[in-house]
Amino acid sequence: MTQIKQLAPQDDFVGFYLLRELAIKQTNGTPQKDYFDIVLGDSSGQLSAKFWDVTTTDKETFFPMALVKVQGTAHTYREKLQIKVSKMRLVIESDGVALTDFIRSAPIRPVDLIHTIKMVMASITDQEISTIVSFCVGKVEEKLMHYPAAKTHHHAYFAGLAYHMVRMLEIGEFLCKQRPFLNPDLMKAGIILHDIAKPEEMISQLGIVSEYSVHGKLIGHISMASNWITEAAIRSDIDLGSEKVLALQHLVLSHHNLGEWGSPVQPQTAEAVALHHIDAMDAKLQMVEDALDTTPETEEWTPFIRGLENKAVYRLKI
Amino acid sequence: MTQIKQLAPQDDFVGFYLLRELAIKQTNGTPQKDYFDIVLGDSSGQLSAKFWDVTTTDKETFFPMALVKVQGTAHTYREKLQIKVSKMRLVIESDGVALTDFIRSAPIRPVDLIHTIKMVMASITDQEISTIVSFCVGKVEEKLMHYPAAKTHHHAYFAGLAYHMVRMLEIGEFLCKQRPFLNPDLMKAGIILHDIAKPEEMISQLGIVSEYSVHGKLIGHISMASNWITEAAIRSDIDLGSEKVLALQHLVLSHHNLGEWGSPVQPQTAEAVALHHIDAMDAKLQMVEDALDTTPETEEWTPFIRGLENKAVYRLKI
Amino acid sequence: MTQIKQLAPQDDFVGFYLLRELAIKQTNGTPQKDYFDIVLGDSSGQLSAKFWDVTTTDKETFFPMALVKVQGTAHTYREKLQIKVSKMRLVIESDGVALTDFIRSAPIRPVDLIHTIKMVMASITDQEISTIVSFCVGKVEEKLMHYPAAKTHHHAYFAGLAYHMVRMLEIGEFLCKQRPFLNPDLMKAGIILHDIAKPEEMISQLGIVSEYSVHGKLIGHISMASNWITEAAIRSDIDLGSEKVLALQHLVLSHHNLGEWGSPVQPQTAEAVALHHIDAMDAKLQMVEDALDTTPETEEWTPFIRGLENKAVYRLKI
Amino acid sequence: MTQIKQLAPQDDFVGFYLLRELAIKQTNGTPQKDYFDIVLGDSSGQLSAKFWDVTTTDKETFFPMALVKVQGTAHTYREKLQIKVSKMRLVIESDGVALTDFIRSAPIRPVDLIHTIKMVMASITDQEISTIVSFCVGKVEEKLMHYPAAKTHHHAYFAGLAYHMVRMLEIGEFLCKQRPFLNPDLMKAGIILHDIAKPEEMISQLGIVSEYSVHGKLIGHISMASNWITEAAIRSDIDLGSEKVLALQHLVLSHHNLGEWGSPVQPQTAEAVALHHIDAMDAKLQMVEDALDTTPETEEWTPFIRGLENKAVYRLKI
Amino acid sequence: MTQIKQLAPQDDFVGFYLLRELAIKQTNGTPQKDYFDIVLGDSSGQLSAKFWDVTTTDKETFFPMALVKVQGTAHTYREKLQIKVSKMRLVIESDGVALTDFIRSAPIRPVDLIHTIKMVMASITDQEISTIVSFCVGKVEEKLMHYPAAKTHHHAYFAGLAYHMVRMLEIGEFLCKQRPFLNPDLMKAGIILHDIAKPEEMISQLGIVSEYSVHGKLIGHISMASNWITEAAIRSDIDLGSEKVLALQHLVLSHHNLGEWGSPVQPQTAEAVALHHIDAMDAKLQMVEDALDTTPETEEWTPFIRGLENKAVYRLKI
Amino acid sequence: MTQIKQLAPQDDFVGFYLLRELAIKQTNGTPQKDYFDIVLGDSSGQLSAKFWDVTTTDKETFFPMALVKVQGTAHTYREKLQIKVSKMRLVIESDGVALTDFIRSAPIRPVDLIHTIKMVMASITDQEISTIVSFCVGKVEEKLMHYPAAKTHHHAYFAGLAYHMVRMLEIGEFLCKQRPFLNPDLMKAGIILHDIAKPEEMISQLGIVSEYSVHGKLIGHISMASNWITEAAIRSDIDLGSEKVLALQHLVLSHHNLGEWGSPVQPQTAEAVALHHIDAMDAKLQMVEDALDTTPETEEWTPFIRGLENKAVYRLKI
Repeated sequence: MTQIKQLAPQDDFVGFYLLRELAIKQTNGTPQKDYFDIVLGDSSGQLSAKFWDVTTTDKETFFPMALVKVQGTAHTYREKLQIKVSKMRLVIESDGVALTDFIRSAPIRPVDLIHTIKMVMASITDQEISTIVSFCVGKVEEKLMHYPAAKTHHHAYFAGLAYHMVRMLEIGEFLCKQRPFLNPDLMKAGIILHDIAKPEEMISQLGIVSEYSVHGKLIGHISMASNWITEAAIRSDIDLGSEKVLALQHLVLSHHNLGEWGSPVQPQTAEAVALHHIDAMDAKLQMVEDALDTTPETEEWTPFIRGLENKAVYRLKI
Repeated sequence: MTQIKQLAPQDDFVGFYLLRELAIKQTNGTPQKDYFDIVLGDSSGQLSAKFWDVTTTDKETFFPMALVKVQGTAHTYREKLQIKVSKMRLVIESDGVALTDFIRSAPIRPVDLIHTIKMVMASITDQEISTIVSFCVGKVEEKLMHYPAAKTHHHAYFAGLAYHMVRMLEIGEFLCKQRPFLNPDLMKAGIILHDIAKPEEMISQLGIVSEYSVHGKLIGHISMASNWITEAAIRSDIDLGSEKVLALQHLVLSHHNLGEWGSPVQPQTAEAVALHHIDAMDAKLQMVEDALDTTPETEEWTPFIRGLENKAVYRLKI
Repeated sequence: MTQIKQLAPQDDFVGFYLLRELAIKQTNGTPQKDYFDIVLGDSSGQLSAKFWDVTTTDKETFFPMALVKVQGTAHTYREKLQIKVSKMRLVIESDGVALTDFIRSAPIRPVDLIHTIKMVMASITDQEISTIVSFCVGKVEEKLMHYPAAKTHHHAYFAGLAYHMVRMLEIGEFLCKQRPFLNPDLMKAGIILHDIAKPEEMISQLGIVSEYSVHGKLIGHISMASNWITEAAIRSDIDLGSEKVLALQHLVLSHHNLGEWGSPVQPQTAEAVALHHIDAMDAKLQMVEDALDTTPETEEWTPFIRGLENKAVYRLKI
Repeated sequence: MTQIKQLAPQDDFVGFYLLRELAIKQTNGTPQKDYFDIVLGDSSGQLSAKFWDVTTTDKETFFPMALVKVQGTAHTYREKLQIKVSKMRLVIESDGVALTDFIRSAPIRPVDLIHTIKMVMASITDQEISTIVSFCVGKVEEKLMHYPAAKTHHHAYFAGLAYHMVRMLEIGEFLCKQRPFLNPDLMKAGIILHDIAKPEEMISQLGIVSEYSVHGKLIGHISMASNWITEAAIRSDIDLGSEKVLALQHLVLSHHNLGEWGSPVQPQTAEAVALHHIDAMDAKLQMVEDALDTTPETEEWTPFIRGLENKAVYRLKI
Repeated sequence: MTQIKQLAPQDDFVGFYLLRELAIKQTNGTPQKDYFDIVLGDSSGQLSAKFWDVTTTDKETFFPMALVKVQGTAHTYREKLQIKVSKMRLVIESDGVALTDFIRSAPIRPVDLIHTIKMVMASITDQEISTIVSFCVGKVEEKLMHYPAAKTHHHAYFAGLAYHMVRMLEIGEFLCKQRPFLNPDLMKAGIILHDIAKPEEMISQLGIVSEYSVHGKLIGHISMASNWITEAAIRSDIDLGSEKVLALQHLVLSHHNLGEWGSPVQPQTAEAVALHHIDAMDAKLQMVEDALDTTPETEEWTPFIRGLENKAVYRLKI
Repeated sequence: MTQIKQLAPQDDFVGFYLLRELAIKQTNGTPQKDYFDIVLGDSSGQLSAKFWDVTTTDKETFFPMALVKVQGTAHTYREKLQIKVSKMRLVIESDGVALTDFIRSAPIRPVDLIHTIKMVMASITDQEISTIVSFCVGKVEEKLMHYPAAKTHHHAYFAGLAYHMVRMLEIGEFLCKQRPFLNPDLMKAGIILHDIAKPEEMISQLGIVSEYSVHGKLIGHISMASNWITEAAIRSDIDLGSEKVLALQHLVLSHHNLGEWGSPVQPQTAEAVALHHIDAMDAKLQMVEDALDTTPETEEWTPFIRGLENKAVYRLKI
């Protein structure tokens, strides 16, 4: 079974893959013929593919996000590797393959990530903060099992958002120990709430974001989360003007640090300053780790990474 | 009775003024003596003043925002006009002067401004939009009678915020007639709500903002208004996910147009684009009008105006 | 008769269209064959099209900006709708169609727009201002009947420039009533003159700008208009150093507001500040209106609009 | 006779100086006394000075830009050297000193600078270019004898503008030899015309700019020069649409290189690119030379220089 | 004994302080009198002070950085607290006070900080990396005992630089455990070397930076450290072209992340990305901690903090 | 023999060319066929070309950077000129053509450029400066014979770097004469050293840069040259802390002027300010000259030039 990441030019191969994208197109020339313009994926990566001379049956059989068995050849087209599909059929039960085997996932199981987040929530000592966090998490709990943290920027895979939270909670715990002037309850709540509205900002299946929602574009996850905190306080009879509601909303609103990055106010509490830096550190290091992971070991340089000033990362041989 | 705006170097004068600022300071030299460092104001403007050799009684008598009768001389100090106070006493009832005569005000009476706003609110045909607008206005109704629209930037005087609203409503009405694709209900609601939380963002008396509130700094008036709309919908059982709540929140959140000016999202509905331009047009033209009004007719140039790329405005002789 | 805007994938259709662009190209493969790479347009929009296997006669018959009768099929190519032309002939007299039916136009007839502009010009009371405006308008009067206001940015259609002027004159009239400190003569003159050199800055036919002129690139319409005012004053014996010439040149030179947007000086008179905001408001709202108009009613979002921070506009369902 | 540049703390001195600035002020304390707040200058630099306890006669005698004989002491006040004047009288004829001895001047005599400029003008071979240059120089010829090139930025002294032109003409001559694709007539004309309207942009006496003129602020020297070229062409019957007029206007309009530096168009001819770099090179190197010249030899660092990214220049000991 | 931080207006007090700054100045008025313009400091903060009517003996006795016993009064001058010194004498041995008691210091003893750094250095397993780090640390070892990390930005106190290193090493150790793809040797070396040339960039005594050195201004600590690594490799016969030298130089050169912040290259290795974020996180959080620490408990807001977008930090009451 | 620059659509031609790029690709359609995607170049320019239906022998015969004899046709493809190769063979000895005839070169022979540089080096009077310059030049002497000055930005051809040096040395010599306060030794050394590490920053053959080296990306030529100066001083026992080493390193480090352009420090010596402007002037004017040279005489405009604010240059007809 050949993994996408291992394919090289001129390889003939057979394997199971996910039809991440599928479009029916026509060739130029007379007569025009239909073909499939495809993106094939598995847990190691993805590649463009063409399936020429498709039949009417083919057009009725295959659909995006279907699992397929493919026989094909890899070749270079416009300096990129591409697949020419010679045979393709839908997966059948006896193939014994499951959808979740074919998508990129966080390295920890979603159920374990959620468990960790729940444990941290349970450790919040302040009752009102705890209530607000629970209310907001409750809004997206099911989606937290699989949503990515972003469309492409970082943690863009199955359960990426929960994974981002868990790693940030680890850094937050370390920092609260190193610097006792930070309030652990606020730190935990800030980390859990800062991106909590992302599942409503983006439309995603299997860790793949197809687009932003209307609310995502017109309100944005930062203001949505701020509104949820308001709602949580009202529904639970917590004083809207209290310092706790203020502190939580400030954490969420300021976590992008600058206006041009989407934050209407800048961090002005100790925990808000910490939250921004924990978020940035985790996001950037994960970009590096993921880029190195998905680049063949033989390559010295990863592709350019937009979130790192559009620089590539060099794989040191030390 | 001499107005501040009319004073010239070497003028001896007597008049009633407001002690906009008052600080007790010490002269250098031995022995140090106490004196008052004062800002005297009336409805035409304000000036720095000194009252030398103050007595213990003086220090117990005078206080900031007191009305006083002053005898003094104007002279130039470090290229600016300054007042040397020779005599000063508190205003007494028989003087027949009222505090409100001494502050800069919108050129229309607050009661009339509020009346106009109420009329426009009554003309909103959509019931849910009307309810949300009323709820938010209700939160600051009393303050709307006197709050300025900003600390110094524009409409920085008594009832400046209500005046800003009313003038914007006039422009909005014109635009809705000129361009029927704009929804008048949303336009009215957007104009009334866009700065509705400013009275909670700033701490102000008599049209003079002394500072920003803690909520103003940590949340900002834009996110506060967004939260109020959420609260209004919950309290009135309006669907939080409805297009109307979405449209109103988007209007408020986007009205500063750019992230670096404080808006977490950019205008993406027709009315939101219109709102930003109505707001900018009214604010900038009012800066010009106010600068020309408070600059002596004999001056060709107004002072530099921060909101106009820090340029002065030239008074054309046409 | 099928309008461009109404075509959907797999539609077979017959209709009259304008050959907005036409290029002869060669297919890859051996032997190479000639084909037409076409842009077909009508008043509702435009689409790419291919006409395969063209003959020598075809190459002699068809030319850009010709009106043609087309039989074809719509299909999707690289995620965009495209037309495959199966038959095409030039329009003949008996078809009863006119060129002007096939281009996008301002919603008001050019002759009416020019009439309105002339009426406003006649209402300028100052004789020297009136003379200068007339001289400058005289330079481009014929082109004002059909020139767009910009290449793609806004009002990019037949008579778009005159339409932009007329709508701005409406806003200007309203503002002069609302704020009597604005001088109506200068306001009218500023609006008419601010883009008056655009017809010399761009090369355009039928509302379609093909490119910028050499003078447009090396001088720009702002400095060209400033030079025209100089010329007008000299030719009419108006004092070059007068406050009126100064005011008009300042209006033109400053109307883009900032150096990075092309204005060598920033607005520093009341009317110049107003002009910039009238211009911005009309341009941006027209972008929104045109984008909504040319996007199918069934689409929630317009395409991205460069002049609106590259955002799309959402069509509210309220 | 002590030069300003040579004064050190605690020096008692007598000398002739120029009263570059003179303001009558009052001391704090009771009774207030009048004193003179003065800036004393000579050709080597300038210093703040105080003349305490001035009499009514003093106030009638002394005026800004008067030449005076001063007896005084230098001392340090707020970390800067300052002068305390003990005696002061107006210069009398028998003192044998002349105003021009007391101002900073270009190191070459104005008459020689003008001579050089005239020689270069005479060497322009194209008749129309020569005519336009002569017309524009004619507008400011008298002022060219003494105007500085800028208020403070660079060449801010007597005849600084003419000196800037002459040095640029030297660089231009060298470059035209090194790179024959540059047109010497355009190069010469561009250098002479690029700042030709500066004497109308600024109000200056004896090389000291007191402020910008109204035309300078509302039009700017770049657009003024462009208008002069238009006027020159009209008055001399040169075709306004000719390539020569175009080339000269482009040189002037683009010489600041970027919109944010005041140029409405960017350099797009070979000579325009050269002109910008000749201008920048001469201005920046002159800033360095002047800063080193007016800083005591014993100082390692010059003051901060605004035009050099606000850096100081280090005096290498090599 | 009154601490600077505890003084309030009108307090009379006696105490020991450090003369952080001392300048002899003259009063205005006749006759001018000498006085001392002073900055008094202790470990809790610093304040401006005046000592009027100083004698010749006073001027010979006192000097900057001297320890003094002061009797004085606190009062408000220009809205800031200031001290009027009534009596002052130099500290004598029997006072039993030591210079180091009067300066702000890192909360851990320098000797312990150096010990920790040495332990980490000893734990670097790669011999060549270890050698280079030792060579560079050797250059400034003595200064590392007391140098601050910056002039005012962050860790601006005695041994601030070593403290910054130690805290970063703690974060680095945590991150290497959390993310095993990071190389611990490079991480340790990068943290120790990134600011290692700061003691040569700044001139400092007792944790107070008086100015930048000539090398600091013309080369900068980043390039100085890069040159030291070159020198270390040459002196120890380590291959200048090796991946290890490359990795260390890249860590140092890129740690400011962006060109406008002084880094000639951007982070392009995993450890370089981590180093930048560890540095930023420690610096910003220390700014917050120090600002909260040196602001009286009764104040809600710290002063504005330049390194935090010039925002103040709010002291939450949770 | 047809030069690339002279080809027009529909031209049939025969000629010798360099295979600057060669890739084997497959056609779409069934069966897929191999073809060559080629870039053909000569000293006048370069063009894309296709060679259809290549055989196995062809694939073994041709390689990038081979010289070939080609028979082909020029045609327009996607609005750009392209070549269809009908016959192609490798050059044989009897053809009498040499590789160096087919690449773009500096207009002066490399050997003469190097000679000039050596003469200037010999004229440096200071022994230590001379030694350091020689050491650094020695590191890349062989590459200086052919390296370009940049990948595409400017002087991107055979010996472009040496040509850039020589022209800058001419400007530098002129400036040192015009302004005697500039030190000629430092000026010469700065010009020779400023880009001296570029041959190690880029990987280049025959004046064509294929990519940046790992050291080039992680260290950059500016810091590499600074390190080389350190190495030179150590190897030659020159005091690392001396003013000469400082001056040379500052020249190299600051020559890009701003942090965002890659300089960690800004120019702060007279020669460093001069160096930056000499570098900019030569680079920009060479871009203009080269663009005009390689654009057909019949074209009014050159292509857009990235280094000139992405503007095209207009070819004046004067």
